[in-house]
This record gives sequence, structure tokens and C-alpha cells, in this order.
Amino acid sequence: MTPPEAPRLLTFADTLADAARAAILPYFRAAHTVESKGALFDPVTDADKAAERAMRTLIEREFPDHSVLGEEYGGELSRSGYQWILDPIDGTRAFISGLPLWGVLIGLYHDGRPLIGVMDQPYLDERYRGWNDGANLTAQGVTRPLKTRACAGLGDAILSTTDPYLFKGDEADAFARVRAEAKLTRYGYDCYAYAMVASGTMDCVVESGLKPFDIAALIPILTGAGGGVCAWDGGDASAGGRALAYGDERIRNAALDLLAR
Amino acid sequence: MTPPEAPRLLTFADTLADAARAAILPYFRAAHTVESKGALFDPVTDADKAAERAMRTLIEREFPDHSVLGEEYGGELSRSGYQWILDPIDGTRAFISGLPLWGVLIGLYHDGRPLIGVMDQPYLDERYRGWNDGANLTAQGVTRPLKTRACAGLGDAILSTTDPYLFKGDEADAFARVRAEAKLTRYGYDCYAYAMVASGTMDCVVESGLKPFDIAALIPILTGAGGGVCAWDGGDASAGGRALAYGDERIRNAALDLLAR
Repeated sequence: MTPPEAPRLLTFADTLADAARAAILPYFRAAHTVESKGALFDPVTDADKAAERAMRTLIEREFPDHSVLGEEYGGELSRSGYQWILDPIDGTRAFISGLPLWGVLIGLYHDGRPLIGVMDQPYLDERYRGWNDGANLTAQGVTRPLKTRACAGLGDAILSTTDPYLFKGDEADAFARVRAEAKLTRYGYDCYAYAMVASGTMDCVVESGLKPFDIAALIPILTGAGGGVCAWDGGDASAGGRALAYGDERIRNAALDLLAR
Repeated sequence: MTPPEAPRLLTFADTLADAARAAILPYFRAAHTVESKGALFDPVTDADKAAERAMRTLIEREFPDHSVLGEEYGGELSRSGYQWILDPIDGTRAFISGLPLWGVLIGLYHDGRPLIGVMDQPYLDERYRGWNDGANLTAQGVTRPLKTRACAGLGDAILSTTDPYLFKGDEADAFARVRAEAKLTRYGYDCYAYAMVASGTMDCVVESGLKPFDIAALIPILTGAGGGVCAWDGGDASAGGRALAYGDERIRNAALDLLAR
């Protein structure tokens, strides 16, 4: 991590995650209203908004020169300076279903490049942190380094995506090619699947249609754990779109071959 | 609950769940070997076997006249007397992926009818219990009743199944009809989806190809919480096969219409 203020920023990201936890947990599995943003079912809970407001307030107070891009209150990706990229509840559909595999995503970019990422799961009391050079997990008070596992090829790989029906046309075909080669495919975990790749219990995640706030926090975690995140053409995924997360470079290469065909 | 010894049996089911927890938890997210039972990928962990052995030992000691049917060590469904029906780790694929939504399933049938069910999630410290007349959840030391929620129609319903690719031919078409009507569909949760229906955060689960040990424990939980489990033709699902779990009778009727078409 190059900027001299990075440890301070990582500590501050923890403060943001604490604030989001406090805002969100009272709503989980409690009766709550669900708004719809548009024609598609896209729930936005009071918790989502409350958490983003709490994090924005802390950022404005502590770092008034940093910009913010958040799922609920908007913003544009910036190529200069520090930018916090927030998804207060990634996995709102899991959240409203009572399933504890949603997460609070807090990313920090510097001059447009991912620098720090935190994924917090308040109900499980798990916090995944990454800073490109390293990553760790604090679960129920115990902190340990995160390390992806070795995986020689897709025939040994556990693959995940949130919802196979989200892929359309060519994307569906591309995903089907990877799925056909993988040992096992699991669905329905949103950001939590990326955390499992960083933890070394899964091997790759293939998704499309991502917004910057869906992926920003996860890139430094995957990279810091020894894996990475790239676009389906092997390029940069930090603005979202079609993303491949992997624990082992061999899985990256094998999946990219199939996704780009 | 009719048999006079039922409270004692429910307490004993808790003892079984405690033993399974102790056997399984050390293996979760730890490096462990995975055997394959056949040509398809069907992981059986040491944890699975250790937990079933621990539960069988306790049953043989306490109730030597009760029969046992378990995923790992076999047995046949019995129509008379008491029978414990055990799946030490339902969701082995989630387990080996590091995902905490597998469960220990402990069912007790009397003369072939579901009497008591326990679903335990050791990592989350959640235990769902049902006895047809009632159901409760103990989560992190706090016990509360389980109650399904009202849901007027599929357009308001959250549907779940473990893996949409498990359905073939007519079954795939039947599932697709229900999915097309549901508000939201989630994948990948095995027994945990049934627990969410019992908890009132989801509305129905549609699955096929179930073994008795996949469903035995869940029936008294769903029934006790105010919902139920039936076959796709509306009949008995206690032997497995094609099952529909629901929280509200209106969802049962709407889903059966589409599944049987």
C-alpha cells in the first residue's frame, strides 16, 4: 500500500463498517418496508439508506476533500484523489429473504485505482479487509490472514454466480461454458462468494452487469489474498461490468479462455 | 403432539444436535478430504460420517428399540414404531464451499408419520425445532416461536430452490411456471430455505429428487410454524421425492396449480 496515510484509512474504513452495522442490524429479519426503485423488483430498505447516510456523514466530517459514490445516494466515478465507493447492503434480495449472506461493501479508490476494501457481514460478525498487499478476516473477535487456495484447473474449481438467470444471450452462453467445466457451481451469494474465494474455500466468481459499488471493495480483498478480479476480456474491472474473481492465476486463464470465446 | 413421551423425545433431539455440532464444527472451513460416492460430484466429509456415528450411538444407548435411517449409514423407512431420520450435513456442497447455510437434520417419525424435527446450523448457532403443533428457534441463546407469514399470492412470494439445474424435462417446466409467477426467486440454500419459510422471511420452496432424510426433519418445523410441506400432487411428502414447502395455504394452492399442470 503506497500512500503514507493508508493505515489510517484502513482504520477509518473499520469505523465506517461499524457505523453501517449499527444502522443495519436492527432491520435484519425485522418487519420492514420495501420500496421498489423501478419496474424490476429492486428492494431498497430503510437500513440501506440509513447505513449510507451514516457512512457519508463520517466521511464528510473526517475527510471533506474525499469524494463519495454510493448505491443509494449516487455520485460519479472519479479519476483523481480519494473516493469512497459504498454499497451499504450488497445482496438486498438475500437481506429481505432473511438470509445472512449479504454484506456491507466499503471501497476506497485513489486516482481511480482500488486501494482498500472492506466487506462486513454484521449478523455473522465477520469482517473481510484487503489492501492489495494483504488481506485479513476478523470473525467473532479472531483475526487471521486471508489466502486463496491453489487450484490447477476448472475441473477442480468451485464456481459461483448470484443468479444464473441474470445472464442473457452471449453472456449466458459464456457462463454456461465455464459452468460446464467447473467441478461444482453454487448460486445466490452476492459479495459473500467473493469472500469465500478470498478465504480459499471457493475458486472463482463470474458475474455481469455490475456497478462500481458492487466490485470496488472486493478487488483489494481478492488481490490482497493472492487472487484477483478482472473483466471478462482480462482488462480492468474496477468500474464494474463483467467481472471474473479468481483465487489462482490458472483459473483466471482457463475461465478467460472460455468467457472470451 | 400426541405421544406422552414427546417432550422427552424433543429434549433428546437437542442432545443429538449437540453431538452433531461437536462432531462437525472442527471440520467447517478447515482443510478436509472429500470423497466422492459415485460418478456425480457428491462430497461426503469426515464430518458427515462422524456426526451420524455420534447420533446413532446416542440413539442405540437411549432408545434401543427405535430404528434409524441415515444418509451416511443407510436404513429403510419404517411404518411402525419410532424411527430417527438423520442427515448429518444437509448441504454438503455448501459446507465444502465454506458457506454457512448447511444444516444438521434430525427427524423423528412415529408409525411412519413425522412427529418431531430439528434443523441445527452450528456455525450460526441457530436451532430450529418443530413438533407439528408448534415450532421455535433458538439463536445465539435466545428462543422465540417460529411463525410463517401471510402471503396472498405468488406475485408477493419469495420462492427458493437449491439448484435450478437439478430439474429436468417436465420438472424444469413445472418449476419455471412457478418461478415466472413468483416475485423473487433465490437459489442455493438447501435446508436453510425451509427454515426461512418457517421464520416468515420467505414463502415457498420447490424441490425434487429428495430422499426421506432431506425432508423428514423439516415437515414438523414447517407444520408447527403454521405452514406445511406436501408433494407436487398435494399428497404426502414424508418419503421425499417432489416437495413443496409453504408458509400460507394460498401459496400452497397457487403453486400446486402450476406444478400439476
